[in-house]
Amino acid sequence: MNQDNLYAMRHSLAHITAAAVQRIWPEAKFGVGPVVDDGFYYDIDLGDHKVSEQNFNKIEKTMRRIIAEKQEFKHFTLPIDEAIAWAKETNQPYKEELLNDLKRSGTTIASDLDQSEMGTITDGDSALDEVGFYTNGNFTDLCRGPHVANTHEVGVFKLLRVAGAYWRGNENRPQMQRLYGVAFNEPAELDEYLERREQAKLRDHRRLGKELDLYTISPLVGAGLPLFTPRGTVLRDVLAQYSNQLRQSYGFQKVWTPHITKTDLYETSGHWAKFGDELFLVTSQETSDKMALKPMNCPHHTQIYASSPRSYRDLPVRFLETTTDYRDEKTGELGGLNRVRSLTQDDSHVFCRHDQIEDEINRLLSAADKLYSTIDMKLRVRLSYRDDGDGYLGEKDLWGSAQEQLKAAVIANNLDYFEQDGEAAFYGPKIDFMATDAIGREHQVATIQLDFVQPGRFSLGYTDEDGSTQTPVMIHCALLGSVERFMSVFIEHTAGWFPVWAAPEQIRILTINDTVLDYVDEVEQVLASTVLMTPVKYNELRFSRDARNESLGKKIREATAKKVPLQLIVGPQDKEARQVSVRSRDEETKVSLDELAEYLQSLK
Amino acid sequence: MNQDNLYAMRHSLAHITAAAVQRIWPEAKFGVGPVVDDGFYYDIDLGDHKVSEQNFNKIEKTMRRIIAEKQEFKHFTLPIDEAIAWAKETNQPYKEELLNDLKRSGTTIASDLDQSEMGTITDGDSALDEVGFYTNGNFTDLCRGPHVANTHEVGVFKLLRVAGAYWRGNENRPQMQRLYGVAFNEPAELDEYLERREQAKLRDHRRLGKELDLYTISPLVGAGLPLFTPRGTVLRDVLAQYSNQLRQSYGFQKVWTPHITKTDLYETSGHWAKFGDELFLVTSQETSDKMALKPMNCPHHTQIYASSPRSYRDLPVRFLETTTDYRDEKTGELGGLNRVRSLTQDDSHVFCRHDQIEDEINRLLSAADKLYSTIDMKLRVRLSYRDDGDGYLGEKDLWGSAQEQLKAAVIANNLDYFEQDGEAAFYGPKIDFMATDAIGREHQVATIQLDFVQPGRFSLGYTDEDGSTQTPVMIHCALLGSVERFMSVFIEHTAGWFPVWAAPEQIRILTINDTVLDYVDEVEQVLASTVLMTPVKYNELRFSRDARNESLGKKIREATAKKVPLQLIVGPQDKEARQVSVRSRDEETKVSLDELAEYLQSLK
Repeated sequence: MNQDNLYAMRHSLAHITAAAVQRIWPEAKFGVGPVVDDGFYYDIDLGDHKVSEQNFNKIEKTMRRIIAEKQEFKHFTLPIDEAIAWAKETNQPYKEELLNDLKRSGTTIASDLDQSEMGTITDGDSALDEVGFYTNGNFTDLCRGPHVANTHEVGVFKLLRVAGAYWRGNENRPQMQRLYGVAFNEPAELDEYLERREQAKLRDHRRLGKELDLYTISPLVGAGLPLFTPRGTVLRDVLAQYSNQLRQSYGFQKVWTPHITKTDLYETSGHWAKFGDELFLVTSQETSDKMALKPMNCPHHTQIYASSPRSYRDLPVRFLETTTDYRDEKTGELGGLNRVRSLTQDDSHVFCRHDQIEDEINRLLSAADKLYSTIDMKLRVRLSYRDDGDGYLGEKDLWGSAQEQLKAAVIANNLDYFEQDGEAAFYGPKIDFMATDAIGREHQVATIQLDFVQPGRFSLGYTDEDGSTQTPVMIHCALLGSVERFMSVFIEHTAGWFPVWAAPEQIRILTINDTVLDYVDEVEQVLASTVLMTPVKYNELRFSRDARNESLGKKIREATAKKVPLQLIVGPQDKEARQVSVRSRDEETKVSLDELAEYLQSLK
Repeated sequence: MNQDNLYAMRHSLAHITAAAVQRIWPEAKFGVGPVVDDGFYYDIDLGDHKVSEQNFNKIEKTMRRIIAEKQEFKHFTLPIDEAIAWAKETNQPYKEELLNDLKRSGTTIASDLDQSEMGTITDGDSALDEVGFYTNGNFTDLCRGPHVANTHEVGVFKLLRVAGAYWRGNENRPQMQRLYGVAFNEPAELDEYLERREQAKLRDHRRLGKELDLYTISPLVGAGLPLFTPRGTVLRDVLAQYSNQLRQSYGFQKVWTPHITKTDLYETSGHWAKFGDELFLVTSQETSDKMALKPMNCPHHTQIYASSPRSYRDLPVRFLETTTDYRDEKTGELGGLNRVRSLTQDDSHVFCRHDQIEDEINRLLSAADKLYSTIDMKLRVRLSYRDDGDGYLGEKDLWGSAQEQLKAAVIANNLDYFEQDGEAAFYGPKIDFMATDAIGREHQVATIQLDFVQPGRFSLGYTDEDGSTQTPVMIHCALLGSVERFMSVFIEHTAGWFPVWAAPEQIRILTINDTVLDYVDEVEQVLASTVLMTPVKYNELRFSRDARNESLGKKIREATAKKVPLQLIVGPQDKEARQVSVRSRDEETKVSLDELAEYLQSLK
């Protein structure tokens, strides 16, 4: 069965969910019920009554009854005013609000809801003020479709969870309940999904973040603003350092810019018009400067480029900065490290001549490839092109050739790719990297973006061989993307069993009894003078000693709970033989003290 | 002659300056004329006429005439309303405004002007609404004194410069002209001062910052928000890294916190009441959270401490974070890197038991001592105590014993010190470090602060040996202070001739002709594999090659202009002998290629 049918099936199940809820609680008021990854949801307002997972059995039973009834999905349309009258009569105030918005704004609908999700516009060319409906059994819903033919054609499904969701994502509007379900064609697919979900729960970085003591969220500081403990900071730093060193090996130089700026900078770059309402605004009480927290770093970097005269011989100029940007994300969308308000980007900008683009793109593709093969994640790339919308700056011809250049580079580098319109940045097309984690989920991570717009807007130039002034091209790139988001992916990918080079605590020495303490001193001297050199250079070993008067079993359990990748067990026999017993997830082995440093340096 | 007399002398010269200006331009309106370091200034409004250095001769001549006239400084007082009438009659609107403010606010005067600078309050216990005046010759000024007996007793002076200054530091008020002068008892002192000033000009970090390409200020980003170029970023990083490594060697662990927070955090800490109007406020357009940019890091760090249960055995817990804070400094006070709005602190916080304070203070004193002896700056410390004002939190008894503890530690460590009341933080007494630079100027740099207040306000605790819950003490410490400010001091201290370990470009290879290029490849291989280990560990060499077809003289001049500390000259004879000719500020010497790495590692 194809994707379209799966979509129709899931969409139909959203209606069936709502129909079942209505059958059980006739007073239910409905918001929207779109298709999402792997399934669907429906936003429902039951007043004081709150649906809980305890109700799922009952709802699912009613859904199965509706499915068994093989109700036909019948399409019809109504003029907008009649549709509004219908919403009033049936006491559906949310639908009424949507219809009123639709009436006011003509063909489009409110920007806070995706059109396909709300699905209120008729497909035909007929009157723009006609809206579509679908009815199955007693349930009628404002809807664009498509649907399956009848309620029996919906495959296998399961209600998964219920969560609070503000109406239209606005915390000042009523809180509804969002009922999530998943649906697939075959039972085996559902089983596989549920299995992967179990796995994902065990790997949930929010849970592991707490268990492994990596970060904390303080209500006094605020949501989406994680504070990193010493262990979490080691992880952050070692990942950022890897990205920094990798980029330095490709000729990038570190720069530093402040986290705030006058908004003049974004008015010049074009970001203000596009993203002005997604910024944190900053008010100076001393001056009248209009300021903002930086949500990206490219405009700042243009100012460093502009601070010196540049000649064609100086290009490419390559800046890197791993720095924290601030984005005013909706509270409801914040979750652990996955989406935060303080996101640290491993950002880079190349300023180059047109004839240098291909080479620079190739270098960046190679850097990304190196990083993700070290992390052991498979990459594929999305070529993100513009669509016909008008949010884009720059000449259309340039866009066309730039898109072709990116595609050629991706093909030349033998990368697995797909193309998608409408995903470009406003200043140019992008290559977006998707990395697959250990349980098969894909995450958007690195990005490479071509930019023919900002250099011109900032009047950047270089003196060409013939003495003329030319405008450089900018290439934006981040390898990890956001360090916080990458950490969430990395924690879940590894289930917290970080590779030795990245682990906050790499080694714990577990003593069998107190007769070995002097020998443990010697072991620690070896560890203290051992420095890992790959993939991150100058990575001093991070180790601790558990010499408590406790059983070895307890010590092993505790070190394992903290997911310390290397446990060095030291007993009288080890002391005698001048060795340590290494216990890792891969092996248990004896290593002589003389060879310990070499052994550790050879670990992957 | 003592300091008090020097003060009176300089204060009298401020009046004499104003008197001279009035004699030349009778329409002059006067602001304030306080004593400052080494001299005095007077703020003057001459309407459209702007005083320039070309007028200095004339003003100084008139001043000398007034001095020769031996005019007596006569003190008298007036009731406040008569004083206001005087200001009106003499057409002195700024004085009138100050007097009106004084009348409104009773005993105090507007907080934007230092009381002693404005000098309007009578000394006696008499009526609070009596204000003091001084007259010399035809010139009368609202003034608290003290003054010398007559205009002849003012030593030697010189007008130095004139600069724009907003009335009361407010950019929305008129811009006045601030006439600066210096004054000393003896001509030799003035000469010495002027000589040091010449020196200081040559070392001015704003000038060197540009010449050495260290940072830039962009009008689009804003004043006080420097952006660091690759060279400046190397310097920032290597200094911060030194402080980080030093603190890590003393048991500190890195943490990371975001740059913004809900203001709830500062309401709890007590900073909001104290510094609320000096913060940059942050507005979320998505939520109604009241937020601010962090101006310090202690409250954030308490939240990491609070994220885990702590036992007496876990203490001391030592956090370090080198992170950027934001302070809403007045535009007029911003200058180069010395005072910025984005200041990066090498901040540290110890959470410890009371019985651990002494040991922790000693460790921090030792760390500061190590750092400043590496930098080759002499330190002395100020013991900063509270005064009787009411801006302080916490019990007075605790303050007393804390101040004694700090003093004992400073004496035990044989530090040169002085004591000053009224310089403490609101939460506890401090040790402030003053470092003397190469031309004898003292700069406030590192600080160690005891804090008995914040742990309680944040309900921090640890489980003591007897199972009870106790409150830890906090010790704040920064070694560099602000990285930016420290850079400004370091640039001027070294005149841009940074020690090899810190120089952005450490080594430049200068070729004599093209026959040596293959040998230069070999030299570069040695450099690329040499890593300096002290004072900063893992400090990879930063070198470049000047193989242009230019004269050696020109190459040396250019490398010297960029203050590259090591120039390796390579000619056919060097190639033949497998050596390089090292040219540094200290020596010119030949070093064999085999011994080059060792030679470089041995440099101070």
